[in-house]
Amino acid sequence: MEQYRRNERIGAIMYILTSRPNEIFTYNYFSEMFNVKKPSISGDISIMKGIVKKLDIGKIETISGASGGVKFLPKSRKDETKELLENLCKKLSHSKRIIPGGFIYTMDILYTPSIIRNIGKIFANEFIHKEIDYVVTVETKGIPIALMTADILNVPLIVIRKNIKITEGPTVNINYVSGSTRAIQTMSLSKKAIRENSKVLIIDDFMKAGGTVKGINEMMYEFGAQVVGVGIFLSTKNPEKKLVKDYTSLIELEGIDEQNGKIYLNSKFESLGQF
Amino acid sequence: MEQYRRNERIGAIMYILTSRPNEIFTYNYFSEMFNVKKPSISGDISIMKGIVKKLDIGKIETISGASGGVKFLPKSRKDETKELLENLCKKLSHSKRIIPGGFIYTMDILYTPSIIRNIGKIFANEFIHKEIDYVVTVETKGIPIALMTADILNVPLIVIRKNIKITEGPTVNINYVSGSTRAIQTMSLSKKAIRENSKVLIIDDFMKAGGTVKGINEMMYEFGAQVVGVGIFLSTKNPEKKLVKDYTSLIELEGIDEQNGKIYLNSKFESLGQF
Repeated sequence: MEQYRRNERIGAIMYILTSRPNEIFTYNYFSEMFNVKKPSISGDISIMKGIVKKLDIGKIETISGASGGVKFLPKSRKDETKELLENLCKKLSHSKRIIPGGFIYTMDILYTPSIIRNIGKIFANEFIHKEIDYVVTVETKGIPIALMTADILNVPLIVIRKNIKITEGPTVNINYVSGSTRAIQTMSLSKKAIRENSKVLIIDDFMKAGGTVKGINEMMYEFGAQVVGVGIFLSTKNPEKKLVKDYTSLIELEGIDEQNGKIYLNSKFESLGQF
Repeated sequence: MEQYRRNERIGAIMYILTSRPNEIFTYNYFSEMFNVKKPSISGDISIMKGIVKKLDIGKIETISGASGGVKFLPKSRKDETKELLENLCKKLSHSKRIIPGGFIYTMDILYTPSIIRNIGKIFANEFIHKEIDYVVTVETKGIPIALMTADILNVPLIVIRKNIKITEGPTVNINYVSGSTRAIQTMSLSKKAIRENSKVLIIDDFMKAGGTVKGINEMMYEFGAQVVGVGIFLSTKNPEKKLVKDYTSLIELEGIDEQNGKIYLNSKFESLGQF
């Protein structure tokens, strides 16, 4: 068996904990892996708690008891989050992004891992105390940010389909009115996707009137699941009265002036509860 | 400024490098962050190279020259990959997963972050030497594994839509015949999604005859992009002659016996080039 010095163990445990956030590892696991007694692992962990604090990247939590151990909860840094949201507002307000009909081209941002990893971190921190069992989204553009959120929370992702798929077996279907197109649409989810009495967090990339999120709410009701939070990347200012009451959005679209090529966006940093 | 001891620096740098794979960090960056001279950082890095080797989790590479620095390339461990694919075959072959029409229920597996993170790692390692600019997939079920692959390769993801979306501006559209439904379908991608002369890696969750991947190939041709690899999670054994010649699949579906509730799957571990 390979021998590890203390600083090697610290590097190794740091990698293991941070690459699998919110997963509990027992002291025994590390003690066996590195062939040292538990007090040494305790010492390593205590040094790592200091590192994580100095770097301001989250918290290493010790859980006592039979199923106890240690886990890493990544957090978003206040200064970095403020800067990220301001930068995104700047990037997204470029006139070339205007798509006729009142839309903004967001695909490049919503599909870039280095950006959405941080967006997932913001959502995860906003709702981490809610004991979430699943992150739920509806296809397509919200999937990457929803997955990053689920990854950090260490829970499965659920993707509701917009069409009934024969390849997924029996489904539950909900009709809803999309705010952007005003058309009646159907959303569909496999009957075995969610355990009963689950707590779910809804994540989506865009919300206008809230029709889609309302549809997801109804869908969750059919599954006996409780919606404990709604996180939206970009929400429109109008209509001010939305079909969904409680939601956290990161950026607000105040308006688009198509004629003069102007997009007006506001960072919602100040409304985040985690700072 | 906070002061860091060597073992704290090692923990901190380990976190930074491994949480942002394939991203180059200069020695200067760390030297300023920790307020120590570059030779100390060199020493830290050299210890970390040892840790990464002992843990068998990848490679810390030093890049010399003006744009030089250091980066972490995560690799899949041979024993763990073999076990993962065998376990997935076992899980996926459960009779309850049979969906009439010759399909298997895979959603729970394809949407669980802890599983797909490893699948992304396998794909990333299989194609890392190809200098990939984008990972491309078509909605919906392949998105999570494609995103995990893109995350590890540190490149953007591109998601081709199955319907023309008015919310994405001008698009390029391709008609193709889906192998599973035999119907003519349209795929659509925003004209500004891909820079010309890019190298792309196609990732998808399922392939039967290869019609969809062939469609993506044609789409990439329209964008002046070169397809340098195709990674498929689950491919069917039949038809043996597929519309796409070169692809790497992780699991092969030999057949489904609906009457007796049997699914026959083979791990394709032995065909992977990375081990």
